[in-house]
Amino acid sequence: MADLHLIKAGGNLLEDSEIRKKFLTHFALLEGPKILVHGGGKSATTLAAKMGLEVQMVDGRRITDRAMLEIACMTYAGLLNKSIVAELQALDCNAIGLSGADGNAIRAVKRPVKEIDYGFVGDITKINTALFDQFCQSGIVPVCCALTHDGQGQLLNTNADTLAAEISKCLSTKYEVYLTYCFEKPGVLLNIEDSNSLVPTLDRTHFEALKKSNQIVAGMIPKLTNCFDAIEGGVQEVRIGQMELLNQTIPHTKIQL
Amino acid sequence: MADLHLIKAGGNLLEDSEIRKKFLTHFALLEGPKILVHGGGKSATTLAAKMGLEVQMVDGRRITDRAMLEIACMTYAGLLNKSIVAELQALDCNAIGLSGADGNAIRAVKRPVKEIDYGFVGDITKINTALFDQFCQSGIVPVCCALTHDGQGQLLNTNADTLAAEISKCLSTKYEVYLTYCFEKPGVLLNIEDSNSLVPTLDRTHFEALKKSNQIVAGMIPKLTNCFDAIEGGVQEVRIGQMELLNQTIPHTKIQL
Repeated sequence: MADLHLIKAGGNLLEDSEIRKKFLTHFALLEGPKILVHGGGKSATTLAAKMGLEVQMVDGRRITDRAMLEIACMTYAGLLNKSIVAELQALDCNAIGLSGADGNAIRAVKRPVKEIDYGFVGDITKINTALFDQFCQSGIVPVCCALTHDGQGQLLNTNADTLAAEISKCLSTKYEVYLTYCFEKPGVLLNIEDSNSLVPTLDRTHFEALKKSNQIVAGMIPKLTNCFDAIEGGVQEVRIGQMELLNQTIPHTKIQL
Repeated sequence: MADLHLIKAGGNLLEDSEIRKKFLTHFALLEGPKILVHGGGKSATTLAAKMGLEVQMVDGRRITDRAMLEIACMTYAGLLNKSIVAELQALDCNAIGLSGADGNAIRAVKRPVKEIDYGFVGDITKINTALFDQFCQSGIVPVCCALTHDGQGQLLNTNADTLAAEISKCLSTKYEVYLTYCFEKPGVLLNIEDSNSLVPTLDRTHFEALKKSNQIVAGMIPKLTNCFDAIEGGVQEVRIGQMELLNQTIPHTKIQL
């Protein structure tokens, strides 16, 4: 099986045009089939503020109402995705931007309402592996924003970390998938202020122990859950770290089976 | 050569969700390879107004400054394109949304500044015929918004009528292309208020005469120029009319060589 790199870029790497250029240059240098999945960062919140809309929160969780879904479509699939694609083209990387609706790439169902109604949020049900494979075989590089569709005309907001893990798992039937979560930190830190507290390798037993002792910050828990989901789901390698990791050996966190 | 339908949908057909649904149903019913090109209608102007931005005009011409280009990316490539794609998927039409940057589909150059600086407006230089052909052969239906790129990372606003004509011309080397410009009127009218004044067929001599006698309204002239450009460039058939034309024989304007 051929190698395939799947990179998830955190929103913080994409907002500032200089940092984005640096990140995309690293990404473009990766050889062979590759896929980029990107979050939206603060772009949706910024646009919402400009339009006088407030982000709806329930119990500290962000709610995607209809107005916020439209803003997500405008920023994630519109401005951000197309800027990334145009900039990758300039780096001789033949990128194509995709939402989950494009080519029926990623299907989801609207999250059922239990305690909280999250609104237009999608839980992934099906990845169109053949479509991603077709692009990779043609030398085209999919750039996926975090939107899916339900097959009945409804777009849905979907977590980009989960999207990256699910695409990786599905493609691991055809490729040796190397999944890297890129963000601004060097990896999992026991003390968020101290780079020396980096956890170089993490297996599920260690992860569960760190959760129990509250040594992992809240925001990292869902990301790591996606990481373990990927490595246990057949992905060859799962790493978390900074963008330089794409082309160099630098300290990072490696997820272990 | 196989037949291919290329449909340009005017913005007025896409703004209202009920009218859009009706149009997309007509489009989805077309058999064989097909491509949709869409304008943006008032969506960009509406979003600009919500954000407190004013459309810049010079000598009655719309200028695309940086802020307006960002709004075009958000509305044309983001909200509008993705809504169309998701709704076509629900109609069992395997659509994929494209800006000119996606898959390097459509290259352009920023329009040179002569009397007027139009800003980030692109004049088309190259259509990626192989990409469109690849999609058509795979049963995937390209849905193109009116944005191109310059290959150096810059997205550019481009006239959707021109885009439709240029794609049609390039694909006419591989397909018998049937190009239909759909809008709210039944075709070219000598009196815009009177449907009975419809011009059923129009050749260039007749067009030039109607221009001279001021019998064609200003907005129709560039559209018709694109039509003649297409029919003279090898496109099999060029028509202008209402959406029902896609599946029925109704009065319309047919452009003649």
